[in-house]
Amino acid sequence: MYKALTIAGSDSGGGAGIQADLKTFQERNVYGMSAITALTSQNTVGVHHVYPQSIEAVQSQLDAVLSDIGTDAAKTGMLFSSEIILAVSKKIKEYQVPNLVIDPVMIAKGGASLLQNEAIVAMKEKLFPLGAVITPNLPEAAELLKCEAITSVKEMEQAAKALHGSGAKAVLIKGGHMTDDHSIDVLYVNDRFYHYESKRIDTKHTHGTGCTFSACIAAELAKGKSIPEAISLAKEFITTAIRHATPIGKGIGPTNHAAFRQKQSPILKP
Amino acid sequence: MYKALTIAGSDSGGGAGIQADLKTFQERNVYGMSAITALTSQNTVGVHHVYPQSIEAVQSQLDAVLSDIGTDAAKTGMLFSSEIILAVSKKIKEYQVPNLVIDPVMIAKGGASLLQNEAIVAMKEKLFPLGAVITPNLPEAAELLKCEAITSVKEMEQAAKALHGSGAKAVLIKGGHMTDDHSIDVLYVNDRFYHYESKRIDTKHTHGTGCTFSACIAAELAKGKSIPEAISLAKEFITTAIRHATPIGKGIGPTNHAAFRQKQSPILKP
Repeated sequence: MYKALTIAGSDSGGGAGIQADLKTFQERNVYGMSAITALTSQNTVGVHHVYPQSIEAVQSQLDAVLSDIGTDAAKTGMLFSSEIILAVSKKIKEYQVPNLVIDPVMIAKGGASLLQNEAIVAMKEKLFPLGAVITPNLPEAAELLKCEAITSVKEMEQAAKALHGSGAKAVLIKGGHMTDDHSIDVLYVNDRFYHYESKRIDTKHTHGTGCTFSACIAAELAKGKSIPEAISLAKEFITTAIRHATPIGKGIGPTNHAAFRQKQSPILKP
Repeated sequence: MYKALTIAGSDSGGGAGIQADLKTFQERNVYGMSAITALTSQNTVGVHHVYPQSIEAVQSQLDAVLSDIGTDAAKTGMLFSSEIILAVSKKIKEYQVPNLVIDPVMIAKGGASLLQNEAIVAMKEKLFPLGAVITPNLPEAAELLKCEAITSVKEMEQAAKALHGSGAKAVLIKGGHMTDDHSIDVLYVNDRFYHYESKRIDTKHTHGTGCTFSACIAAELAKGKSIPEAISLAKEFITTAIRHATPIGKGIGPTNHAAFRQKQSPILKP
């Protein structure tokens, strides 16, 4: 059985964080494990509190998983502080974790900060060089490059190439924040660009989109797929999950992690 | 979409705790949420560390979930201390959480204590009266009743009836720890006994069995099933998960949460 590990925050509301990641791994028939960096009390309205965990707790979870079970892929989500980023980077190196997908989570949909400012440098210098893919959205890519807003596919390609210099094998810039009819993601890997296009879906229920997307990429890499193939399937997975998003709660509802499977095979009787 | 909430510890190894619960909810097409009471760094070999969370963090997660999204059912797992039990009981009462399944987790398979001794009284007095079903195994039932070992189906029936006095609507005593060829669980509800029998499976990979079983009961109750019906399906789910358990790690491997679905519908291509 293929295995994947998420290193991220916990979203009590179940739509993002390790909850979204574990649901996605399960849907893709990959055995899911987790190292929790912080608890959040969170729902569809926003992030109400963040409870960062101790460095020792983060390290201890990683040791438990990696020394015994091991993993075929991993993803990072909310890492919160430079201390946690350094500790995570060290363990990833120590256990030679393969197929690392780095989702450089910075700000929640509701606006809450999920990464301390000084942590961006640590992420670029220590974590990115260990990554198979990094998956910033447009505001994150701009923040990482300390540049103005990225507003065209051409600029996305330039940003992908520039971030590739940080040492990750591949860079995927997600165009979800652009306002065109179509949403385009740009991948740069092995000196080539790939474009992943999908029709924009008119919905506000996009809570946990980035978590789910990167978790699905990690799940497919765990199975031995190439980076472009893994992203291609993950793009289909997340697009379907957004299209069938569940309007629960009073705010930004979660995507529907079961939709891709239910589209492929008949829904089981309850 | 039906919703279920797990209030429990986190198992980094992914086989038990909120991880097993969320996987089970997902497999049963129920939207999963969580309030984490403690992190554990844990793998198939054992529980290496326990990091209990603050009362405030537990309450805040419950408020976030229940004030916005709400739930159709809930389950409790590792609650660790009387303080956490009291806080959880208060919130369950405040939000009138329906269909509460209480798995009175006390000791991990490897022997680690997951509940402080004085917490047993709080659990019986404050939490049990709010429960739809409580699901002790044989050692837990004996501990709750402060009695000698329970060694026969007759004694299981007596124990179920005695624990019913604590105020829960139904009591399910799980016979997994007996050594017969068949494993029998005894349910007492509405002045009636139900027996759930299954052939004992020769495997050591039973990590997270209790968590998975109670999560599946909660998922089925969320859909509006009766208690005997919910337990009947959950028994099939957990028996299938144990039969197809994954031999990962060096110790007691997890059950296979995907096995029940994969038995029902063809396995999707990877």
